[in-house]
Amino acid sequence: MANVQEFLNTIENRRTIYNLKPELPEGITVEDIKETVQRITKNGPSAFNSQPNRALILTGTTHKKVWDSVVNAMPTDNAKMRPKACRDEAYGSVIFFVEEKATQKLQSDFAAFAEVFPACAQQSSGAVQIESWAAVEALGLGCNLQHYNPLVRAALPQDVPTSWTVHSQLIFGVKNGEAGAKEFNENPVKIYN
Amino acid sequence: MANVQEFLNTIENRRTIYNLKPELPEGITVEDIKETVQRITKNGPSAFNSQPNRALILTGTTHKKVWDSVVNAMPTDNAKMRPKACRDEAYGSVIFFVEEKATQKLQSDFAAFAEVFPACAQQSSGAVQIESWAAVEALGLGCNLQHYNPLVRAALPQDVPTSWTVHSQLIFGVKNGEAGAKEFNENPVKIYN
Repeated sequence: MANVQEFLNTIENRRTIYNLKPELPEGITVEDIKETVQRITKNGPSAFNSQPNRALILTGTTHKKVWDSVVNAMPTDNAKMRPKACRDEAYGSVIFFVEEKATQKLQSDFAAFAEVFPACAQQSSGAVQIESWAAVEALGLGCNLQHYNPLVRAALPQDVPTSWTVHSQLIFGVKNGEAGAKEFNENPVKIYN
Repeated sequence: MANVQEFLNTIENRRTIYNLKPELPEGITVEDIKETVQRITKNGPSAFNSQPNRALILTGTTHKKVWDSVVNAMPTDNAKMRPKACRDEAYGSVIFFVEEKATQKLQSDFAAFAEVFPACAQQSSGAVQIESWAAVEALGLGCNLQHYNPLVRAALPQDVPTSWTVHSQLIFGVKNGEAGAKEFNENPVKIYN
């Protein structure tokens, strides 16, 4: 059971870290982050093994350009604060997508279940996003998950397929502070014999 | 990085195991499964910390009754095969839910984003389901994830709140065979600098 406890600890240690520096921890490269996200994306379960998850990583000028575009689209100084922090205080961002063609193929192949497949893709995507978040923090980084989906989509490099829908952005960098307090509901898991 | 590798290994070892015996591995109790699922459910991130995830565990006669009800609702012998295996070859099932009141409250409190919150709950739920699947297999069990959602809902004990929507069923028992071959797409994670 030892590895279960470590797995649960890694899940519990995944917290929202807003206070970041645009650096990587010593000994960690963007290739380590890429390999981590790729293993999780590749192994995420999906309806009929349709494998709808996709991801890419933005760093450097591309990261800055995308987030600058989000800043410029925000209508108020208050609304600009979060994307400005993404642009200026993070080292990079992982963009998570769903390939809509995978869902469309399922809907065509299994028409009787057509209406459930979008939810299947959402659930598969959620697992990949949140497991990646936990794993990248376990590499020693701080992360927060953002959802500026249409604005990010509009600013991405031209070669990202248009059939990929943006689901979230995992903002990462060196931790420059700790997670805030979090309120938990217990929601006990009842056993029925 | 050692614990990241173990985390990724646990994620990669999560596979669909259909061939089960209605037993628990030596040294594992249903309380261990409950604690594992509860820690993951409690710690799942969610939009505005709305914490929509709920879970319960069925074993014994309640598990048999629920799955017998699904078997009886299936129209053909072929369609009855999977729920029969759930009923007869598994030790129990974890039922995953979303509390719809949590989403409705977000939609009321943040009306401008009302249309995105159902997807947020789906993604949060997917992470909790799939992390639980990996963790319960890391306890030494075999599992498969089923989606007989409306039929399971109809057969659940009366005290399960009607505002909880069923998202999936994690079927568990002692492994009586290995996972089948799985085809993987690589879907490389590209880095844009």
